[in-house]
Amino acid sequence: MAKPNVAIVGATGAVGEQMRLILEARNFPVKKLHLFSSSRSAGKKLPFKAEEVTVEELTESSFADIDLALFSAGSSISKKFAPLAVSSGAIVIDNSSAFRMDKSVPLVVPEINHQDINWHQGIIANPNCSTIQMVMILNPLHLHFELKRVAVSTYQAVSGTGKEAVNELINQSKDVLAGRQTKANIYPHQIAFNVLPHIDVFLDNGYSYEEWKMINETRKIMHLPELNITATAVRVPVINCHSESVNAEFEKQIDLDKVRNVLAAAPGVKVVDDLKNNSYPMPIDAGGRDECFVGRIHRDISVKNGLSFWVVSDNLRKGAALNAIQIAELLVK
Amino acid sequence: MAKPNVAIVGATGAVGEQMRLILEARNFPVKKLHLFSSSRSAGKKLPFKAEEVTVEELTESSFADIDLALFSAGSSISKKFAPLAVSSGAIVIDNSSAFRMDKSVPLVVPEINHQDINWHQGIIANPNCSTIQMVMILNPLHLHFELKRVAVSTYQAVSGTGKEAVNELINQSKDVLAGRQTKANIYPHQIAFNVLPHIDVFLDNGYSYEEWKMINETRKIMHLPELNITATAVRVPVINCHSESVNAEFEKQIDLDKVRNVLAAAPGVKVVDDLKNNSYPMPIDAGGRDECFVGRIHRDISVKNGLSFWVVSDNLRKGAALNAIQIAELLVK
Repeated sequence: MAKPNVAIVGATGAVGEQMRLILEARNFPVKKLHLFSSSRSAGKKLPFKAEEVTVEELTESSFADIDLALFSAGSSISKKFAPLAVSSGAIVIDNSSAFRMDKSVPLVVPEINHQDINWHQGIIANPNCSTIQMVMILNPLHLHFELKRVAVSTYQAVSGTGKEAVNELINQSKDVLAGRQTKANIYPHQIAFNVLPHIDVFLDNGYSYEEWKMINETRKIMHLPELNITATAVRVPVINCHSESVNAEFEKQIDLDKVRNVLAAAPGVKVVDDLKNNSYPMPIDAGGRDECFVGRIHRDISVKNGLSFWVVSDNLRKGAALNAIQIAELLVK
Repeated sequence: MAKPNVAIVGATGAVGEQMRLILEARNFPVKKLHLFSSSRSAGKKLPFKAEEVTVEELTESSFADIDLALFSAGSSISKKFAPLAVSSGAIVIDNSSAFRMDKSVPLVVPEINHQDINWHQGIIANPNCSTIQMVMILNPLHLHFELKRVAVSTYQAVSGTGKEAVNELINQSKDVLAGRQTKANIYPHQIAFNVLPHIDVFLDNGYSYEEWKMINETRKIMHLPELNITATAVRVPVINCHSESVNAEFEKQIDLDKVRNVLAAAPGVKVVDDLKNNSYPMPIDAGGRDECFVGRIHRDISVKNGLSFWVVSDNLRKGAALNAIQIAELLVK
C-alpha cells in the first residue's frame, strides 16, 4: 500500500475536515481521495491539493475502490460500514469508540505502541481524544518511573462534540452576553459560562462513558491491564483544545530534573513550563498545533513519588485526525 | 455584642456587596452599618434595609465606633487596618489570606469548627473560597470514614478575582465573538474561551499560592495538620460559582449509601446527584444559593476506599460573604 486510494468517512465533520487538511499538509501519498458523508452534505465540493473533491453519500458499495478508510462519523456508522470496508479489502482506521476495546482490534498511539498495528485484522482503532494526550505524557514517564496510580480531571472543549456544539457555545454565549434567554440543544444544559461534569452517557458504576474510556483505553494502549486509574471528565466553555489536570504516583523515586528531561525528549511532547514568565499550556495556544503540551510539572506532596502536571492538546488533531493519519503513515511505510 | 455597630471594609467590591445583602437578608442585628472603601468609591450611596448608607473612605480612625468589622479588601488592607480595628475594640472577621495561617488566629467554617472562635484574639479569619466548599463535604465524610488523602482539581469562576475580572471575561468574550483582537489586563492571559492553570502567584515548590492555601487551610480547619492533600487550581470562563473535582481516599471502608446519607444530613450541604435525569451540580444553578452542592458521587476504582465527587458553590456567598456572616452570627449569639 505505497500510494492508496483513501476515503474519509464523515468528511464534513470537525475531525473529517482536519483529516483532509492534515493529509495534504503532511503530503500523505494519496492516489485518489474519496470524501463520504450523509446524504445531507453529499454534492458539496471540498478542496484537496490542487483539486476539488465532491462529497459522496456513504453507501454499502462506497468502498469498492478504497485501500484505506479513515472513519470519523460516530460509532453506529463505524459499526455498520467498517466491516463492509474491510470485506472490500480496505484497511480501516476508526476514530469512533466502536472497536477500541475489541480484543481483535489494536488501539494505537504511534509514539507509544506502534508495534500493535502489526496484529490488525483490517481495523485499527484511534483512541479517545482525552486518552491520547494523557498517555503521550504518562507513557514516557512510566518507562522511567513505573506508574502506580493516576487520577485525572479534564477540561474538555466543545469541538470534541462536533461543529454543532461549537455553534451552540457561540450562540449561547451571544445570548447570555445580550441578556437573552438561551437554550441547550446539543448538551443537556447550557455550556456557555458554565461547566458540565458530564461527557457521553453515565454508567451504572457512576462514571461517565468518557471517563470509562479514558480508564480502559489507557490500560490497553500502555499494555497495563491492571493500572490503577480514575478520571473525571468535564466539559468547559472552550471552543477547541482539551486540558487535563493529572496526579500520578510512581513506584520509583522521581527526580524533577529527570522528569523534565524525559518529557523534553519524548516525541510529540513539548514542555511549556516557565512559571516566572506565566508560561504554561493553554487551549488558546494549542490550536492547530501537533504537540501535546505539558507544564505545571511539580511534586504532588500528598503521596510518595507523586507528580502533578497539566496537559493541553488540540483534540481535533493529536486527539483525533493527526493520530489517525500517523497510524496511516505507519501502514504506507 | 448583641446588636453591634458593623463595618464592611471593601464595601463596593464583589464580596462586600454580598455581605451587605446577606446582613439584610438574614436580618443580622445591626445597630449601625458603616461602609468603607478606597477614596475612589467614597461618597457612593448604597441601600441597606430602609436606609441609604454613604460609603466612607477607609482611614486609620474609621473604627472608633465599630464593634464588628468584616474585611474584604485584600491582604494588604487587612494587614494594615485589621490590627487598628482590633485595638479600637472591634472584632475583625477577615476574608483575606493575611491572617489565615497565623497560629493566634482561628480559621473558621461554622459548620465544621465553630468552637475555634472561642480562642480568637480579635481577628477571626474566613477561609479561601475553594477551601470552604471542599471542607464542607470532606469534613462530614472524614468524621465517618477517616480521610487518608485528597486530590482536588478546581474550576474557578472569575468573580473570585473581583468585579474587574467579571468585566474582563465579558468584554473579552464579546471581542472573541465579534472576531476582534482582545487583550488581558486582570489575568496574565485571555480567560474568555480559555482555561488558566494559574490562580494567585506561583511558589518555588511549583504549587500556586491558591493551591497552597487549599492544602494548608484544609489542614487547619479540619484539625488534621498532617493530612495528605494536593490541589490544582484552574480558572475557567465562568462568571460566578466555583466547581471542584475531588478524589478522596479513606481509612475505613466506604459504603455509598452511607456516604449519601452522611452528606444529605450535613448542614449547608445539598446532594444533587440524579444521573438518570442529567442532574448534577453546575455553576449556573448555584449562584445566589447558600448551599454547597455535591454530586457525581461514586467509587474511585483506582484506590482502596476511594471516592470521587463534584462540588459546586457560590464562591461569593458560602465561599466568602455568607461564611463571614455565619461567623458573625456565632459572635452575637
